[in-house]
Amino acid sequence: MSEAALRVSMGQKMLAEFLGSALLLATVIGSGIMGETLAGGNVALALLGNTLATGAMLVVLILIFGPVSGAHFNPAVSLVFLMRGELAPSAFLPYLACQITGAIAGVWAAHVMFDLPVIQESLKHREGMAQLFSEGVATFGLVLTILGCVMRAPAAVPYAVGLYITAAYWFTASTSFANPAVTLARSLSDTFAGIAPAGVPGFIAAQIAGALLALMVARVLWPRR
Amino acid sequence: MSEAALRVSMGQKMLAEFLGSALLLATVIGSGIMGETLAGGNVALALLGNTLATGAMLVVLILIFGPVSGAHFNPAVSLVFLMRGELAPSAFLPYLACQITGAIAGVWAAHVMFDLPVIQESLKHREGMAQLFSEGVATFGLVLTILGCVMRAPAAVPYAVGLYITAAYWFTASTSFANPAVTLARSLSDTFAGIAPAGVPGFIAAQIAGALLALMVARVLWPRR
Amino acid sequence: MSEAALRVSMGQKMLAEFLGSALLLATVIGSGIMGETLAGGNVALALLGNTLATGAMLVVLILIFGPVSGAHFNPAVSLVFLMRGELAPSAFLPYLACQITGAIAGVWAAHVMFDLPVIQESLKHREGMAQLFSEGVATFGLVLTILGCVMRAPAAVPYAVGLYITAAYWFTASTSFANPAVTLARSLSDTFAGIAPAGVPGFIAAQIAGALLALMVARVLWPRR
Amino acid sequence: MSEAALRVSMGQKMLAEFLGSALLLATVIGSGIMGETLAGGNVALALLGNTLATGAMLVVLILIFGPVSGAHFNPAVSLVFLMRGELAPSAFLPYLACQITGAIAGVWAAHVMFDLPVIQESLKHREGMAQLFSEGVATFGLVLTILGCVMRAPAAVPYAVGLYITAAYWFTASTSFANPAVTLARSLSDTFAGIAPAGVPGFIAAQIAGALLALMVARVLWPRR
Repeated sequence: MSEAALRVSMGQKMLAEFLGSALLLATVIGSGIMGETLAGGNVALALLGNTLATGAMLVVLILIFGPVSGAHFNPAVSLVFLMRGELAPSAFLPYLACQITGAIAGVWAAHVMFDLPVIQESLKHREGMAQLFSEGVATFGLVLTILGCVMRAPAAVPYAVGLYITAAYWFTASTSFANPAVTLARSLSDTFAGIAPAGVPGFIAAQIAGALLALMVARVLWPRR
Repeated sequence: MSEAALRVSMGQKMLAEFLGSALLLATVIGSGIMGETLAGGNVALALLGNTLATGAMLVVLILIFGPVSGAHFNPAVSLVFLMRGELAPSAFLPYLACQITGAIAGVWAAHVMFDLPVIQESLKHREGMAQLFSEGVATFGLVLTILGCVMRAPAAVPYAVGLYITAAYWFTASTSFANPAVTLARSLSDTFAGIAPAGVPGFIAAQIAGALLALMVARVLWPRR
Repeated sequence: MSEAALRVSMGQKMLAEFLGSALLLATVIGSGIMGETLAGGNVALALLGNTLATGAMLVVLILIFGPVSGAHFNPAVSLVFLMRGELAPSAFLPYLACQITGAIAGVWAAHVMFDLPVIQESLKHREGMAQLFSEGVATFGLVLTILGCVMRAPAAVPYAVGLYITAAYWFTASTSFANPAVTLARSLSDTFAGIAPAGVPGFIAAQIAGALLALMVARVLWPRR
Repeated sequence: MSEAALRVSMGQKMLAEFLGSALLLATVIGSGIMGETLAGGNVALALLGNTLATGAMLVVLILIFGPVSGAHFNPAVSLVFLMRGELAPSAFLPYLACQITGAIAGVWAAHVMFDLPVIQESLKHREGMAQLFSEGVATFGLVLTILGCVMRAPAAVPYAVGLYITAAYWFTASTSFANPAVTLARSLSDTFAGIAPAGVPGFIAAQIAGALLALMVARVLWPRR
């Protein structure tokens, strides 16, 4: 955490986590709707638009909110920083609350922008061992990316995370949710990027497992000096 | 504003705003025509080309014109810097004039490049609450991106703005005009990126509302030291 | 020119210009063939692949050859640096020779890679005022990009040029050749990126006009200190 | 090699080479499967997704593992650094072993993620002089990119390599394997990115030839000071 971040109030951090999570989900859901609407049934093309938008937005959000809150937008990431002693225990629940409410607000904002019913529930089934393994790999890679950059190339974090998710949308069978708050919020949208509620608990468990494995590997690869 | 910018004359700044706005609009309109012409009816593919070109060009234009004029190319952005006391009041109207005339010149240049009638009027309807909300969100995000970077990571501004617009073309239902001069100029092109004149006033009002909201949020998140 | 470049021999510079031009043209022609072969008749998709490859390769070539020769790969750019007194007059013809022979070698290498006849002549007509105006605009923008970055943000030159060409492939009706050596070499390939020889002289004249206009504008916008 | 790298143990380096190679191959194979599955028979679109994912992941992997092991993930690259005296001879075989086993583990992980049989053998023929010449050019360009950046712009290595492979997927007829460990591992997947075992020895020979040529050219262009 930079020196500037130390002088940031908890209210500012919470606002950053809320707004960042909201803009992230508005992008994930909105670009999914846009892609599906325009792609004429070609799912690869819809996913290309979805990927481009999500990757680009992540770079921006981490650039601007990073100096305020660390730009987690992700309970699994906050958990990892908590366990590393880099997030105050008293900050964990407020972060979590802002990430989840922000993510849901972002989904609803996307629905309003595209003139769809605000309250929805996804019917898109994403279950089974292959999907769970995908989410474990996806989150393992995400946390490894964050910790590796934080330890050795901190200025590159925004770009690395945006590029990692760009890749992960394509190389994992689940298109890489890799984030419990995002997973929960995406269950509230019956659009391209949705996930039926039944799949949510498994996804979150797999994400936490992947994150914790990355935490252990990072300790070996990039020990503190 | 960098030290170098302080020694730049108003004429140089106006030329930069004019040329930057012209090249931006030539890109928006030109790549829209190219995309629609080549995509064989697949709108997602046309939008991909339009997005790639616009995002890439924005990075370039802000890199080269930023040290001269600040590279606004956008009356909503100039208004925000005026209200922050970072644009001299006497510069506001000249900036506005150069942005609008430059944007129109860019539209016409695109028409000439693609051998189309120079003078056109768009018939593409973009109206309704969902479109207006989209423009508000789009401009809120754009101004937040600019102010967040200016305050905490100024060297990243060109990349952040290019990436933000790349995302915003896909996650907002309006494809993110987010700029009153751009909106006005795009009403003069009956091509992919056009907007029928009837939609212009609403878009501009929504853009200004979004920009002012971002100005307020930015004061909370990134106070001056 | 960096201090390191001053200690580079003319032979090293010529090798860099030759290799850079060759790899650039291998990329332009090769990715055009790949795009057209795989896109199933969708020209927008072929152009996307062509654009992505060319823009990415330009960044790389300027990063690695820039410190050696300045990474012009373009007679119009060398002419501009000659007129600015930043390229020695005795270096101009050697640069030109290496750019042209390198570009032709790159075209031929692409033909060998794709198992096509090495010696070809393009039949693709690219003529008329709209095409010439496009080439003028394309080269004006390219030279403005280079000079603006060189004067105010030199470390960004590789990225700015790659991004500019990414945009220019889409916003100009000619897909932005913007380079006399490239134009000449592309007349020797009857593939996606080719140009029939009849169009070459007009393209080159328009490119030089655009480059000289940018040289004048750059003097106004970014005067030497 | 940075000062930090000197204090890294061989075990850490081996873990970095293993994990990096595994994540690289999971991305190459996984995004190939995703692309082919979603693209509805349009191979250009499948290759676009494959390219985007691979290029993005390479940037990330080199950013995070570069300070640990140098982030070779490639026996041809390790060979070049060995010959330049920048990799200890005793490290060469351990690097090779980790690259090959990591690459194979990555292929298998992709199969598990997409619910496919783990053990496969590719039937995709990639043979003939044009393919071999393509691999030679591809690896020549890759090693030139790495050595040019290492000597003159080391911080740009991750971005340069990611961008180079992005271009090379499109401009070479073989889609640029450019890596003996990757070639071997891709023979174990009968999916989009596979290669029938019969083609492997030729590819590897061509890759080593291209790498050694680049080593010689790099000595001329970027001599040590």
